[in-house]
Amino acid sequence: MDTAGLEAELHAFAAARDWHRFHTPKNLAMALSVEVAELVEIFQWQTEAQANAIMQSDEARHVEQELADIAMYLVRLSTVLGVDLNRAVTDKLVMNAQKYPAPEA
Amino acid sequence: MDTAGLEAELHAFAAARDWHRFHTPKNLAMALSVEVAELVEIFQWQTEAQANAIMQSDEARHVEQELADIAMYLVRLSTVLGVDLNRAVTDKLVMNAQKYPAPEA
Amino acid sequence: MDTAGLEAELHAFAAARDWHRFHTPKNLAMALSVEVAELVEIFQWQTEAQANAIMQSDEARHVEQELADIAMYLVRLSTVLGVDLNRAVTDKLVMNAQKYPAPEA
Amino acid sequence: MDTAGLEAELHAFAAARDWHRFHTPKNLAMALSVEVAELVEIFQWQTEAQANAIMQSDEARHVEQELADIAMYLVRLSTVLGVDLNRAVTDKLVMNAQKYPAPEA
Repeated sequence: MDTAGLEAELHAFAAARDWHRFHTPKNLAMALSVEVAELVEIFQWQTEAQANAIMQSDEARHVEQELADIAMYLVRLSTVLGVDLNRAVTDKLVMNAQKYPAPEA
Repeated sequence: MDTAGLEAELHAFAAARDWHRFHTPKNLAMALSVEVAELVEIFQWQTEAQANAIMQSDEARHVEQELADIAMYLVRLSTVLGVDLNRAVTDKLVMNAQKYPAPEA
Repeated sequence: MDTAGLEAELHAFAAARDWHRFHTPKNLAMALSVEVAELVEIFQWQTEAQANAIMQSDEARHVEQELADIAMYLVRLSTVLGVDLNRAVTDKLVMNAQKYPAPEA
Repeated sequence: MDTAGLEAELHAFAAARDWHRFHTPKNLAMALSVEVAELVEIFQWQTEAQANAIMQSDEARHVEQELADIAMYLVRLSTVLGVDLNRAVTDKLVMNAQKYPAPEA
């Protein structure tokens, strides 16, 4: 993932609105959890079949918007913390491969 | 964001472990919320000052790992739903700029 | 806690609206997480000082309503699972007292 | 619900461990969301059938403990905020009955 452009855009967006004082790690972690809950809310009363077909329903755009909100807060929080999200993912993939070895063919 | 490589890697990882049957939209949305909570847990009893300095503490690696987990489930859910996360973010940025106009200089 | 009256009331409320088919353990756990996020959302951009004074703000009624929603889904989920919430709390208090011994006076 | 006894017990438990300084509204809201996620985690990869039978599985005690944790943080947060949870629920039930009228028989 190359998130540099998005990081800069979100930083400028927050700066232009004087939002940096709100964007503490603690607050952004809370905001991220709220955005994920807005996604969960779409699925909460659906059957598995309905949930599986969500992108063929009139909730499709809504789902896309919530996924985007989650991505933006995740990138924003990474920026504020000074975390290279790309490197963090790469490192975690290595850890996961060791933790959950694939069964042999 | 170019998430194509990561999408393919996570898809192959799940396939090798026969996890695709678990990776329904509903389950992945739940898993995403659980991963975000693991991040929130790191901050929950901290003062603002402690939270702001988290990357200079011995929780720094832990924070990176949780951010990575969130990114991976977010990309995995987007893949399963057939959502182009990059385009979704671009569209949402346009919406947000209209919804929250920057004050004039 | 004596939750028997509330359990019966929520059961009748759901039955009258034909909602029992939605009230599976998985769905109710998701709904509970969504309600908690609605509470978190009230606090997410607040300073500690603002959050501490929330009940003297015009968000006071809103906070009460979200706390009530959480209580109702928690009791509803306990009913559906057949869990005696009162006994569960009593047992957990004993466990916590052993896990976190109080420092001696 | 009569939560007075539990409120007093949780207050004394926190006082004996010098935890009151951690128990701010913002922190307790975060902690509550983390406890709910620990419940969601139990269900996240289960089928509906598995989730429906959870209390006949060896996760039954675990579910009870998570429900208890949620109840305890909910009551603790209500105490710290000075909210009468019982009255809040009663008021919300009236609101819900108006918002979602039952279909006529």
